Amino acid sequence: MSIITLTTDFGLKDGNVATMKGVIWCIAPTAQITDISHLVQPQNILEASAILSISAPFFPPDTVHVVVIDPGVGTARRPIAAKVGSQYYVCPDNGVLTFIINEALSKKIPIESILLDNRKFWLPAVSDVFHGRDIFAPIAAHIANGIKMHVLGSSISDLTIQQIPTPVSTEDGYSGEIIYIDNFGNIVTNISKQLLNQSTDVIIKLCSIELKGMVKTFGDRPPGEIIALYGGSETLIVSVVNGNAAKKLNAKIGEKVQVLSL
Amino acid sequence: MSIITLTTDFGLKDGNVATMKGVIWCIAPTAQITDISHLVQPQNILEASAILSISAPFFPPDTVHVVVIDPGVGTARRPIAAKVGSQYYVCPDNGVLTFIINEALSKKIPIESILLDNRKFWLPAVSDVFHGRDIFAPIAAHIANGIKMHVLGSSISDLTIQQIPTPVSTEDGYSGEIIYIDNFGNIVTNISKQLLNQSTDVIIKLCSIELKGMVKTFGDRPPGEIIALYGGSETLIVSVVNGNAAKKLNAKIGEKVQVLSL
Amino acid sequence: MSIITLTTDFGLKDGNVATMKGVIWCIAPTAQITDISHLVQPQNILEASAILSISAPFFPPDTVHVVVIDPGVGTARRPIAAKVGSQYYVCPDNGVLTFIINEALSKKIPIESILLDNRKFWLPAVSDVFHGRDIFAPIAAHIANGIKMHVLGSSISDLTIQQIPTPVSTEDGYSGEIIYIDNFGNIVTNISKQLLNQSTDVIIKLCSIELKGMVKTFGDRPPGEIIALYGGSETLIVSVVNGNAAKKLNAKIGEKVQVLSL
Repeated sequence: MSIITLTTDFGLKDGNVATMKGVIWCIAPTAQITDISHLVQPQNILEASAILSISAPFFPPDTVHVVVIDPGVGTARRPIAAKVGSQYYVCPDNGVLTFIINEALSKKIPIESILLDNRKFWLPAVSDVFHGRDIFAPIAAHIANGIKMHVLGSSISDLTIQQIPTPVSTEDGYSGEIIYIDNFGNIVTNISKQLLNQSTDVIIKLCSIELKGMVKTFGDRPPGEIIALYGGSETLIVSVVNGNAAKKLNAKIGEKVQVLSL
Repeated sequence: MSIITLTTDFGLKDGNVATMKGVIWCIAPTAQITDISHLVQPQNILEASAILSISAPFFPPDTVHVVVIDPGVGTARRPIAAKVGSQYYVCPDNGVLTFIINEALSKKIPIESILLDNRKFWLPAVSDVFHGRDIFAPIAAHIANGIKMHVLGSSISDLTIQQIPTPVSTEDGYSGEIIYIDNFGNIVTNISKQLLNQSTDVIIKLCSIELKGMVKTFGDRPPGEIIALYGGSETLIVSVVNGNAAKKLNAKIGEKVQVLSL
Repeated sequence: MSIITLTTDFGLKDGNVATMKGVIWCIAPTAQITDISHLVQPQNILEASAILSISAPFFPPDTVHVVVIDPGVGTARRPIAAKVGSQYYVCPDNGVLTFIINEALSKKIPIESILLDNRKFWLPAVSDVFHGRDIFAPIAAHIANGIKMHVLGSSISDLTIQQIPTPVSTEDGYSGEIIYIDNFGNIVTNISKQLLNQSTDVIIKLCSIELKGMVKTFGDRPPGEIIALYGGSETLIVSVVNGNAAKKLNAKIGEKVQVLSL
């Protein structure tokens, strides 16, 4: 049984996600379909890319990930499919794969990509405004059915990558930024455990406060205390135990985070 | 593997949707169940009907669509099942199928409907307040299992239809209204592409503004611009490129939209 | 095909729920996975327990319910699995099974429980902050695959139970409290139909109002009227017909509810 995931900015009310599932099951009746997120901020390509990159690697080989954050739908932007390592991606070529591709490049994971130009595998009628339904869902279903990528389109090698904020080295440490606020109000930074050599002996400055040292996990401190730790994706996060750090510190995505050696 | 979809106004927190899935799997263990929407405004029968009618037609033949917007649960309103074309519907008889049935009537698609009066196929104990769990979920599972409709109840032919706003012809065009605001803030009207003869040479008046001409898709204009175009369901919509038209224009469902020939 | 349900406080945006599903499918590729709720208030163990206890009993035997409300992740709190009657539960030992266990004890349903201490069945790398992904998801998948509980850990018999508010007998009836507000704004109390001997001839006092008698279902009164009735889980609820009782009465969880005989 093949698995297909969906990531969009469609929200959960309108029924458009279900429409894509219906289209998929018409072509691949036994596919298992699951949602990664449909609450991506409208048109926020990098947010979708980040959410996808955290979740996709945990899926079985040959999973097909459909990503529809598509402000350029119906214009010249290219519909693409890519195989990155053992996983497939189907999406507009606008940078939604940025984190996935950067990771693959840094780990020398093979990338194979195609322009979806074989209309035989699209729905017969293609609207100008809903390629998730008319192109990406049917293509994902055909890949799940075992159709080879080269049959679905022409090979390309110039996938669009967006610039992402990366931490820079400073005199006494690193300067990064807040890149995500999660459901608990945890403040997620772009400073990785690897970059800090797994050290927890650091001073962290953000949102006009300063934290000395990091803890291992949330319950290491009493409720209400502000802590720094490594999150589930091994980047530095700032939290309030049983509370909401982003609200407490009025943190915003893009704000600076400084890490200094103790 | 048969497919069952669920559309309700239950929201996503309370666990009632999952309860219905559990009931279904007790009867039809291999059914594939998916959500269309559970964020229908409480008791808004026509909103549910519109969402359903956009998504359901894209599902495979013999899909069973369960719709539980049910302000009359436990009263004399009838529990029904209907086969419309190749798809099944299971719901209270209160108008949630209005759009589906109107479409079927206009296209001469056959409709077969029954009153669910064979209690043998309900849960043994039926509450007065949760027929989604006690009647509609088990009935859907039995249909997915291949039980024929006539076994589940008595044939009827007087399904409830609600009045829906339809555009009217004016001296120089059409007068319709706003019927939905989607997740992107797109303003969806009830004026169809077919009604306008697929023309895009029109003047559109709504919310105290006037738009001249329609575009093909969102990316045809720069971000922030207000545009009119045909949406994924081939009705006239008004959008802000990469923005939220409903917020920008303070648009409300029910407000008048006028379309004049250019 | 085995069924696994997920209940968390992760919300629906971050992709963490999908990550757990990916992990499950790597181990149990044909498992059917569904969500009970991911909108539990962060760290609200009893809310999760209540939602779970309403939904879980309707699932088929051998369903595996994963519950990740886990403020103590990475600390000394124990990861556990339990078989209660015919259903499995996998979760931190912090009281998320309180309602399930109380019900089982009162009905003499057998409970078998283990401490998950066989790391062979966890993911190879276990973070300090995401045991949902690293311990609970893989364990659930192994149970779905038929691995016996005693292989996954050591037998224990001291599962954590939290105190829950129970109604008390008064001179002329019962005094309970509001324990939940549902998606419709229905005010759910902890006073059961059983406790009241199924009587509807009662006076209900809450939020500075007094209701005389109960009705059978919502549609028994005109829209806007405040009513009391037995809800889908057979406890006393207070509603506004086609409206939102919690908003109208400004009701809060924990507020007192009195029931007097008529």
